[in-house]
Amino acid sequence: MENKIFTVIGGDLRSVKLANQLMADGNTVYIYGFNNAGFEMGMTESKELEEAIIKSEVVIGPIPCSNDNETINAPFHSEKIHINEVFKIMSKNQLFIAGRIGDKIAHLAEIYNVYTIDLLDREEMAVLNAIPTAEGAIQIAMEEIPITLHDCNCLILGFGRIGKILGKMLHGIGSNVFIEARKYSDMAWIKSYGFNAVFINELNDCLSDMDVIFNTIPYMILDTNALSKLKSDCLIIDLASKPGGVDFEKAKSMGIKAIWALSLPGKVAPVTAAKFIKETINNIICELGV
Amino acid sequence: MENKIFTVIGGDLRSVKLANQLMADGNTVYIYGFNNAGFEMGMTESKELEEAIIKSEVVIGPIPCSNDNETINAPFHSEKIHINEVFKIMSKNQLFIAGRIGDKIAHLAEIYNVYTIDLLDREEMAVLNAIPTAEGAIQIAMEEIPITLHDCNCLILGFGRIGKILGKMLHGIGSNVFIEARKYSDMAWIKSYGFNAVFINELNDCLSDMDVIFNTIPYMILDTNALSKLKSDCLIIDLASKPGGVDFEKAKSMGIKAIWALSLPGKVAPVTAAKFIKETINNIICELGV
Amino acid sequence: MENKIFTVIGGDLRSVKLANQLMADGNTVYIYGFNNAGFEMGMTESKELEEAIIKSEVVIGPIPCSNDNETINAPFHSEKIHINEVFKIMSKNQLFIAGRIGDKIAHLAEIYNVYTIDLLDREEMAVLNAIPTAEGAIQIAMEEIPITLHDCNCLILGFGRIGKILGKMLHGIGSNVFIEARKYSDMAWIKSYGFNAVFINELNDCLSDMDVIFNTIPYMILDTNALSKLKSDCLIIDLASKPGGVDFEKAKSMGIKAIWALSLPGKVAPVTAAKFIKETINNIICELGV
Amino acid sequence: MENKIFTVIGGDLRSVKLANQLMADGNTVYIYGFNNAGFEMGMTESKELEEAIIKSEVVIGPIPCSNDNETINAPFHSEKIHINEVFKIMSKNQLFIAGRIGDKIAHLAEIYNVYTIDLLDREEMAVLNAIPTAEGAIQIAMEEIPITLHDCNCLILGFGRIGKILGKMLHGIGSNVFIEARKYSDMAWIKSYGFNAVFINELNDCLSDMDVIFNTIPYMILDTNALSKLKSDCLIIDLASKPGGVDFEKAKSMGIKAIWALSLPGKVAPVTAAKFIKETINNIICELGV
Repeated sequence: MENKIFTVIGGDLRSVKLANQLMADGNTVYIYGFNNAGFEMGMTESKELEEAIIKSEVVIGPIPCSNDNETINAPFHSEKIHINEVFKIMSKNQLFIAGRIGDKIAHLAEIYNVYTIDLLDREEMAVLNAIPTAEGAIQIAMEEIPITLHDCNCLILGFGRIGKILGKMLHGIGSNVFIEARKYSDMAWIKSYGFNAVFINELNDCLSDMDVIFNTIPYMILDTNALSKLKSDCLIIDLASKPGGVDFEKAKSMGIKAIWALSLPGKVAPVTAAKFIKETINNIICELGV
Repeated sequence: MENKIFTVIGGDLRSVKLANQLMADGNTVYIYGFNNAGFEMGMTESKELEEAIIKSEVVIGPIPCSNDNETINAPFHSEKIHINEVFKIMSKNQLFIAGRIGDKIAHLAEIYNVYTIDLLDREEMAVLNAIPTAEGAIQIAMEEIPITLHDCNCLILGFGRIGKILGKMLHGIGSNVFIEARKYSDMAWIKSYGFNAVFINELNDCLSDMDVIFNTIPYMILDTNALSKLKSDCLIIDLASKPGGVDFEKAKSMGIKAIWALSLPGKVAPVTAAKFIKETINNIICELGV
Repeated sequence: MENKIFTVIGGDLRSVKLANQLMADGNTVYIYGFNNAGFEMGMTESKELEEAIIKSEVVIGPIPCSNDNETINAPFHSEKIHINEVFKIMSKNQLFIAGRIGDKIAHLAEIYNVYTIDLLDREEMAVLNAIPTAEGAIQIAMEEIPITLHDCNCLILGFGRIGKILGKMLHGIGSNVFIEARKYSDMAWIKSYGFNAVFINELNDCLSDMDVIFNTIPYMILDTNALSKLKSDCLIIDLASKPGGVDFEKAKSMGIKAIWALSLPGKVAPVTAAKFIKETINNIICELGV
Repeated sequence: MENKIFTVIGGDLRSVKLANQLMADGNTVYIYGFNNAGFEMGMTESKELEEAIIKSEVVIGPIPCSNDNETINAPFHSEKIHINEVFKIMSKNQLFIAGRIGDKIAHLAEIYNVYTIDLLDREEMAVLNAIPTAEGAIQIAMEEIPITLHDCNCLILGFGRIGKILGKMLHGIGSNVFIEARKYSDMAWIKSYGFNAVFINELNDCLSDMDVIFNTIPYMILDTNALSKLKSDCLIIDLASKPGGVDFEKAKSMGIKAIWALSLPGKVAPVTAAKFIKETINNIICELGV
């Protein structure tokens, strides 16, 4: 993708890197919403919102798009950027791409006749994001435990995107990988990949042997009963979005360390995360034939 | 699973091995339909169909169940075993499990009030079968090509069950694995697994570098145009069910070796194939709470 | 390496492929000793030995160089090619490279003032040859056993070149890999690579669980006592050079299948084997600064 | 190993964990040299050096044994423990095991007629230590770089113990692994393991593509010339013991981040490091038949 005109508006370090990468690919890129960044951006910010948007073909908002459904999520900006002002400036030939565009923002877009696409609805984006998430989880485990991951018993709860990729990486480092799932076909996949398959009803029996547990299931699975089976020095890393899958208070009271690690891609690998956003945007543009 | 009563009726070597394994697990097993086997069965066949079925809890037919929709597929038996006679003997408390139970047989089962389950509808069975299929494909490639699979350029067309497992095994041997797919999310998965992702529109550009191509897509993909891009000593192994994905005549006329390899599990690893059938049957029984 | 003049003299299919590859790299190549080949050589043979050798910079003999220490090992030639005639034609500026140049041939070379290098003394050649050897062993196992190598218990006796590479490949396919060794440091390596380490004094205890045993140790290790521990359907593949490591007669009498698989590179992957010979010859030429 | 009597004297956290593990295995363990530890030791320290040693069969000193060749390296102890006093108490039936027993200490041992074994002379110990070293290096890389190791270009300088194990782990995470070596046989090994082999004379050509460089070679290899080829955001992690292989001052002046990471096993995985020491001690005891 090149010779397109993009606007990157608000967002965290990933948005900055995304703007840099789009420019390096030969596109024209306007940015707005970073007046407070305090580091070298590698490009000049537009002075006005309108200036940033008016000539653009694709306007890229942050992930998540907003924390209040009214203003753009712009941690590096000193003033509020109202979403309706963004939409007011945009014409119907422009595309608005951002992450987690909720009902309220979508409704606003309709009113202003703005075409929007949610990055988090893109399956390839979700798959790619599992890579830095898995690496971030491994980094945390390495930092926390006094043993090597090599020859360590690691249990992954859930066999979705993160479970698959995390399992592969842990196996690659030399961990003994156990994956819990609850469908027979997942059991078959887990075995075929060379992991130890733990059917949900066998979970309790294997908990006491585990050194690290990675949870990816977004509902209570490590409850009082499960926690009571663990070794006291077992580490729990919960990667599941709210409400998570761990009774953190109970774990704490039992002296079991449990870490809730969210939004890892932007934290551990912002440049890679930006690259994955860029690739997904390119795919969207290709599909739309913009 | 143990202490159940099974009947294994007809089928190839897998059915024999299945019967042996069920018995070794502590079940009672009747067999019928092997009077011509000519090898040591390890157990005694029932003399009459009725004797074989009458006390059974689960009657297991072959994969595929029938080649003519009228008689049981029984290559080791000298006489025809009519499906309607099997069903006539069975009571409604007995379960009939077999592979590829077509509409006609299903209709017959309804008439006789027999409860049937098709093994090939079971996702875990399909996944597990991809393991011997992938190994069989590797064996054929090893036998046919005068180079090692190590450091060999292998292209897999399609990223379904076989594509995933075959890719993993080839990578494990040291091949340079390329996988073709046509969804962006599949591209993401392929990259995340460390394979070279080939988007469908890039396929033609990479064909000329390939040493072996494994097809898993059941429609014409290696047509005249694609074949013309290949090195003359490129080997094609088609694993797709009918109609396959290769223009075999054209390939032959161009001097390109193309092998259509079907039904590999029963051929290359009947004991493992039988084990996977057994596991799937156990899962069915668990689910039904029989 | 290019623009050199080579002679390839005698040898099996690998020598033919080697000549082809050297020519494809842009060298001039004379060949002699294939008048009986009966297949398309892709190049014209010299009519006389002298014509083939006289202009050459490097004369390449077969692997092994000779079976009788007097004539070149030339299975595709109808007449004998005497080594001393080869040496008589060669000048001291020419290099003679071949495999397994024994004392007698070396002595002859001294007499004729010919500089020789033995390919089998080259460590990189030995390492590279372990690749097709390991693949060949895997192919044989796949052909012989009715189970998949995936999830199969494979024991490798010895942790030398073949043991290491075979272990890696089997692990890559999904086998449960056990490797026997007798040094503590090898135990450490085996564990670090993620295999199951079997110390020599634990060998007897693990034999009964094995589905396939690959031996790489060239002295009797699978003797009557060890064989008596095996399952009757355990397959033995002996990759060790003479005298091998298996009591084959005893195995046969016990109904255990044991295959002595020698010289696999030339048999299973002659083109790759030729490439490895070529790379080694290039290394030799680089080192000598010829 | 059990029912032996050990003394653990001085050392860092690994020594504490080692004492705990030896006791957990069923041995009697005396400890001395931790009066300042400030954490729960899990066992009671002997009050006097003599009390700690007198009944012991094996006295285990730290790694390294001493920093001044006169006193035991005892970071958790408030007073000096003189090596000659340790040796004075020991009888000739006792064994002294520690790491890096230099000439001076060895000489002292001779005078006092004490039998000593240096842990760092044990090959298995060196191999096993490469596992936490490699993981520690990966942890540092993950913490430092804003990209994922997955699909990252990683160059390892040197193909010794650490190079081999680090290469395997990085490959397992999904890095593109390049390994530099200078022997043709190492090139062959590197290729056979599926890594990209970089011959020493090709090194300069590949430097500019690298994202992370891990050095294991203990002499200047990343000098001004090599550093000038790197991307400015390339990270260097030097794992080589003194004098290291990186011109750190030059790197700093060029804005290239270079980290000298020594003694990783004790830092990142003290429990695993202790386990490896214990296994090595067990091997020593087995060999000696003590």
